[in-house]
Parts: sequence; C-alpha cells; structure tokens
Amino acid sequence: MTAAGLLPRLATIVGSAHLLTEADQQAPYVVDWMKKYHGRALAVVQPGSTAEVSAVLTCCNEAGVTVVPQGGNTGMAGGATPDDSGRQIILSLGRLDRIREIDPVGNTMTVEAGCILANVQAAAREAGRFFPLSLGAEGSCTIGGNLATNAGGIAVLRYGNARELALGLEVVLADGRIWDGLQALRKDNTGYDLRDLFIGSEGTLGVITAAVIKLYAPPAARATAMVALPDGQAALALFARLVGRAGDRLTAFEFMTRSCLDLVQSHLPGVAVPFAELPPAIVLTELSDADAATGVTDLLETVLGDALAVGEATDAVIAQSGEQAKALWRIREGISEAQVRAGKTIKHDIALPIGRLADFMRDCETAVEVTVPGLRFLVFGHLGDGNLHYNLQRAPQMTEDEFLGLTGRLNTVVHDLVERYRGSISAEHGVGQLRRDELPRYKPAVAMQMMIEIKRLFDSRNILNPGKLLAN
Amino acid sequence: MTAAGLLPRLATIVGSAHLLTEADQQAPYVVDWMKKYHGRALAVVQPGSTAEVSAVLTCCNEAGVTVVPQGGNTGMAGGATPDDSGRQIILSLGRLDRIREIDPVGNTMTVEAGCILANVQAAAREAGRFFPLSLGAEGSCTIGGNLATNAGGIAVLRYGNARELALGLEVVLADGRIWDGLQALRKDNTGYDLRDLFIGSEGTLGVITAAVIKLYAPPAARATAMVALPDGQAALALFARLVGRAGDRLTAFEFMTRSCLDLVQSHLPGVAVPFAELPPAIVLTELSDADAATGVTDLLETVLGDALAVGEATDAVIAQSGEQAKALWRIREGISEAQVRAGKTIKHDIALPIGRLADFMRDCETAVEVTVPGLRFLVFGHLGDGNLHYNLQRAPQMTEDEFLGLTGRLNTVVHDLVERYRGSISAEHGVGQLRRDELPRYKPAVAMQMMIEIKRLFDSRNILNPGKLLAN
Repeated sequence: MTAAGLLPRLATIVGSAHLLTEADQQAPYVVDWMKKYHGRALAVVQPGSTAEVSAVLTCCNEAGVTVVPQGGNTGMAGGATPDDSGRQIILSLGRLDRIREIDPVGNTMTVEAGCILANVQAAAREAGRFFPLSLGAEGSCTIGGNLATNAGGIAVLRYGNARELALGLEVVLADGRIWDGLQALRKDNTGYDLRDLFIGSEGTLGVITAAVIKLYAPPAARATAMVALPDGQAALALFARLVGRAGDRLTAFEFMTRSCLDLVQSHLPGVAVPFAELPPAIVLTELSDADAATGVTDLLETVLGDALAVGEATDAVIAQSGEQAKALWRIREGISEAQVRAGKTIKHDIALPIGRLADFMRDCETAVEVTVPGLRFLVFGHLGDGNLHYNLQRAPQMTEDEFLGLTGRLNTVVHDLVERYRGSISAEHGVGQLRRDELPRYKPAVAMQMMIEIKRLFDSRNILNPGKLLAN
Repeated sequence: MTAAGLLPRLATIVGSAHLLTEADQQAPYVVDWMKKYHGRALAVVQPGSTAEVSAVLTCCNEAGVTVVPQGGNTGMAGGATPDDSGRQIILSLGRLDRIREIDPVGNTMTVEAGCILANVQAAAREAGRFFPLSLGAEGSCTIGGNLATNAGGIAVLRYGNARELALGLEVVLADGRIWDGLQALRKDNTGYDLRDLFIGSEGTLGVITAAVIKLYAPPAARATAMVALPDGQAALALFARLVGRAGDRLTAFEFMTRSCLDLVQSHLPGVAVPFAELPPAIVLTELSDADAATGVTDLLETVLGDALAVGEATDAVIAQSGEQAKALWRIREGISEAQVRAGKTIKHDIALPIGRLADFMRDCETAVEVTVPGLRFLVFGHLGDGNLHYNLQRAPQMTEDEFLGLTGRLNTVVHDLVERYRGSISAEHGVGQLRRDELPRYKPAVAMQMMIEIKRLFDSRNILNPGKLLAN
C-alpha cells in the first residue's frame, strides 16, 4: 500500500461520505477549540465501528501514513491537532457513539469512544445511577478523549481521574489488531496492566474504541459552602479538618486567590462574591451523600463552625438552596471566562504534594516576581487534588506581545520550582504539543527512556500521533 | 561477569552476613508458606538499600543469573519460590523496612518495599490516619509484595486493590537502573503510566523498592451485620440496596454459602453462626464512617429492615459491640482454617461481573456436578468485588489422591465457564506458577502478545522471575 493508493482504500472502508477531503469540511478538525494549534490534514476519516477503525489503521500502518486520533477536539495541549504537513489523517471517533450496555447491579456501563461525556452522564442518570466525571467541556468532549488524556475535572477528589473510572477497554493497535479488554471486573490479576498503559497515552500507543466505566449511587444530598480564608496555609488546615470529619463525603475543595475573585467580579456582570470585602483566598467546598437522611448540611455547619472558632476561616456562607449553590459555583466556573475577557495569560497546570501547596505558592510568587516584576497572579484550582491552575497575567505597562514573549522563561521558573517540590508540570491537561519539549527537562531520564521504548514497541512505524507527548 | 564470579561480588555488595548460601539458612526462602511449591537457590541475597538492590541486579544481569524477588513469602500462586535448578538467586527485600515519611495533611506515606503490612497500618494509626489494605497474611506479608501482586483483601470494596492505594513507586530495573517515580501526587498527566505496569507484574518487570501510598481518615464508627439470605440472587439485590443507600459507607460485603458455615461450625469449636437454622447463604456486611455522629448503625438497621420486609433477607443480626462484630468476622475468617482441617480442596480465585454472580454460581454447580458428581461446593468471597473463592471438596467415597487427580479437569470446567461470563481466572491471587499454563487459554492472544513483548523490552536477558506469570 502506498500513500497515493490510501484515500480510495479508506473511502471503501468507511464510505466516501465519511472521508472528508475538502478544506471546508476539514476546517473544524484541523484547529483546536482554543484556536491555538493549527494544522492541515490529508483527510478526516470517520469510521463507524471498531472493525472500521481496525481496517483504517491497518491501511495507514502499511502505507506509513500517520494518524491523529480525535474525539471532541476539546483538549488543552494540542494533542488532537495535526501538524502542518497536510500528510496526516485525522481519525475522528465521533460516529462510535453507542452506549452498548448498562448494568445497574454491577454498576458498570459499556460505552463507545465517541460518546459525548454529557450523554454518558445522562444515560447513567436515567438508569438511576451516577457517572461522576465532570468538566467544563462535557457538552462536547468524548469519553474516548477523556480516557486517552486521563481527564480530571471537578469530581476527582472524591471519584478519581478518568483512569480510576475505567474498568475495561477496547483498543485498536497501530497495526490494526484489536485488543478486547472490555471486562466489567473490579478485580483481575492475570498479568500486566495494559489498560492503564493506554489511558493517558494521548493516542500514541493505540486508539481506544470503547470502555467499561464505573457507575455510582447518585448523591441524594449535597451541601455547598464558600469559605473566606486568611491565607493558603489556612486552606490546607481546613482541608485536613474536612477530610477528617467528612471522609468521602468531601466531594469538592476548590481554591481561589483574591485576584481571581476580583477578576470575576470585574469582568462578569451579575457574579458577586458573597463577602463584604474580598478575602486573601477562598475555598468552595461541597459535601455529598448517597443517603439523604444523614445531614451533610449539619455536618458542614459543624466543621466550618470549628474552623471559624480557631481562625482557620474568617467567614463562611452555606448555600440554602440549589440556586444559591449554583451561584457559588458560578464564581469558580467564571474564572476561565473572566480570564479570556481580561486578555491572554500564561498558564500552568501543575500538581504538588498537597501539604506543600502553601509553601510552593509563597516561593513561586517570589521566584516569578524576581524574574518579571509586576505580573498578576491568578492562582486557583482543585486544591484537594494538589492541582493548581497557576496563571500569570501581564503587568499593566507591558504589551501583550512583550508579555507572551516571556512564556518560555516563566514556564521554566514555575516548572523548575514544581520539580524542586516534586510536583508535576501537567496535572490534568496532558502533554500533547504544549509541554512536549519541556518534558525531558523534568521527567527522570529512566522514565523518558522507558516511555520511548514502549512507544517503539507498540507503534514500530510511528504512525500514531507522532510528535505528541514524545518528540518525533 | 560469569556465574562463578557472582557470589563473591554479591557478598561485597550486601556484606557476607546477608548472603545466605547454606541450605539451612535458605530453608525458609525456598518453600512457599503453604508448602506447595519447593525450589532450590544458589543464594539468598538480602540487600539493605535501593542502591544495593541496583548493584545486585546489575551483576546478575551481566552474569545472566536469574533472580526471584521475595517479600514476606506469603503469596498464593508460587510467584516467589525459585525453580529447582539451584541456579537462581532469591532477592529478599526484608531489610528495606524503613518508613521514610508520613504526610498527614497530604495523606501519604513513603515506605520501603520490605515493610510488613501490619507495621504500615500501625504507623498510619499512630499518625492519626488509616491505611486500609488488610488481608490474612498482614502480620508477615510486605508492602512490596502486596504491590507486586496487586493484593486484594477485605477492604477492596471501599478502598480498592493495592494498585488503587499507590501514588508513586521506586523501581530497580533488570539491568540495575533505578526509576525514581516516588511522587506523592494525586494527579500527574506527564506520559505513560509506568507505575501501574510494575504493580501486579509479580516481579517480572522490575523490583519495587519503595512506594508512596495513600492514607485515609480513620473510620470513627462501624456497624457490622450478618444477614441470612434465601439464595445468591437475594445477595445481589441486598448489595444493590446497600450501595444505593450507604454509598461509600459500605466497607464490606462478604458472601458465604451454607456449606462454608457448616464446615466452620463442624471444625472450629466455639465458632457459631447466630441463626437457629443455617440459611442457604449469608452475607457479612459492614458500614463505616469517618464521622461518629452520623449513625451507621441506624442506617444499617433501616436498610436491613427494608430488605427483610421484601424477603431479600430472612433474618439479620447486627453486632451490638466490637466483641460481637469480631465474633461475626471470626466466622468469615475461619473458613480457610476449617478448610485446612477438612482436607485438601481444589481452589479457584475468580472474578465475575457482579450482576451475573448468581447465574454463574447456578451454572457452575451444574457444570461441575455433571463432570464429577458428589463434590462439595465451598463458595465464599468478596461479593461486593465480584470475587468468589470457588473451592471444591472431595466426595466422601473418593480418596484424596483420586480427588486431586481431577484438578486440571475441574479447573478447566470452572475457568471455561468464567471465561463465558467474561470473568477472570485470578481475581486477587495473581498468576505465578499456579495459573501460568492456563493463562494463554483464557487471555486474548493480543493481550498475551503484548505482555510477552513488554517482558522482553523490560528484561531482555530474562533474569527477573522467569517462568512466573509467563512461560520461560
């Protein structure tokens, strides 16, 4: 098979209606949703079944044509955007959108990779169950993409990342072989954990075509509070207090510094922080419980009362209705939108050992300020997961270009410190194109070597998403 | 380096006091604790640090001498016993027994591989935290062995297997390279999941020398009940009911058939099932909660009341004290001991999709009875994990030898049916020597191929535990 003979062959496999070769058809697929990464493609291929995915990969592997798997195209690291050669195939999984099975006793669901996350959540709800993965893009991202990038989101503290929510996978390998690992088992000790090798591999080791995911009892009661704090250290103390009393009822623990609150209030009309003065930091926390009778609101009141008494918190508001809870969440969720309106930021998606977060924030502010004085720090994130979105906004006297020109230097300052604290330079967004060239600086050489060798083993012709995660 | 020159070199590395070459010194290491697997060894090497493990493996790899890693030697599948060649080195990790760090805010602990599980639990307790991994052998098994075999136990339903309890690993590779993956992070999306490749690989891909493990808030309240059931299907209904109401408070859901109860009462004086007549099946269940004030006993009473009202349960006893709870657990834990006293059994450690457990038990009883009539079925296990210990006892008219001669045939009957139900032939015990030759019959060919290739990649000279998990 040569590259020239490939397109007709692909048209035969998927039907010519599902082989997009015109520029206008391809437009939504060759640019990421942030419009940060732009590429070109030989074609967009839309297989309708696992067998078709297998046939497509077999052909591409024989032809030596490289393939960029794509789900909802909502990634944060450019992992699903082709390069600019115009010689890559985009493998769009959107037509694999069946929910194959729901087992409400075993609490599992078998879904195809192209299912939109919100549809998966809805199907669980209809079966009286709950699928906890939840993130901003849930209306358009796909479960296959979530698994390929090991997505995080707002329910990780209680339920884990996408990785922790998967029991089994179906994967098509680079050469077209299909691995049926679609087991709905809580335990299976029959050899190497192949599943977790594919999860988070960003489409470089195989193409996930279906998965068995875990379902849970739906929360019957929720309590939501916004808590004003004197500083970051107090957030850690409050977190430890809540874990100790509420255990697994603690479903969210989101942290925001004053500058984030200020930004939201300035740019989003109608969004207001429920404290007379903006405190140095706040936490948005939520308890939830499968049993409605056990009083999560009472528990939250008690714990926050104790925290106020010892000065860990300076003020607190507990939502008295679902509407009020939504209004509190709107503040947290508004940060991204407010950032966009305020102009470009230099972003970091980092993870630290939770107990060291306050020290890290102090040290990192100093290190950045020494390097480039006057920047604004927009620091927020899933503190309960040790995950900060550590974003920097330009100083008033800088132009946007001047500021963005500092990206590499500021990345190095922030990430070098992350490394010193034994953290991660990509907590939940993945590597993709965004962090690929930084990775070898921070990953132990032995780990890089193992990764490169595994890639070679699984994809000897390097056709699967080359240049993502690992250098070409 | 030749094999002949190896021993003096190893003595230099670990000190001659830690190189055991005499048969009497080696005796505890060359036989598994069940005395089922017997081997011989060139030497037992006891390194005292990760650097020493690295030096030992470097030498063995150069010399082409194979190495059997060993923790507490409590495995169930012969994975830590050498072959009978007398040419293998046993690498005993027992001297790596330091707890390196405890972080009560981040809820993590860094432990060396040779730490005894019970000591890890105790260290967590002393720090006001809880490490949930718990199994029969906890007084002598090591955390390194637990991770290498992805151990299960009695807390999996709520907290997961050993895999789910590990955040980071330190591993020495076959050629002596050290991978420092000791991160205490809840999130890290910087590439392939190397950690989970080593966990459960039974010492065939690398030697785990240390780990960062997760800690939890200690349970402040517990409620334990024994419930009499009309049949297996009722157990599934009760399980669904408890998950729906208690959510994560459901900490244990252990199932036992009447024959197990009968066996325990016949062989263990003083152990009595608290029902006037033995029911067809019982469940031992436990709720626990980090908060003492929220009434797990009330909740359990309510849910069991509902179950009794609809006939899912026929009787129930809730423990009124810690002593009573212990007495109920004694029945469950007594099954292994009672089995030993009753003579040899043919054992299966299987996992099924939870919702299909009752159908499987019905079908498997028929299939076994057709093959060999008159056997006694001792079926019990962690039903909440879909994990059954499906054990068979000889018919009264058979000799033990006649019965044991049927092992292969009965394994095939049980495991073929497990496969038809898309289950696993080793839920928590691993493969080792025990299931190695059966594995290719049940594992998809693609998965076997990937495993063999990964093994070659990580251990090109095949020195790490050859013949375990995979054929030589």
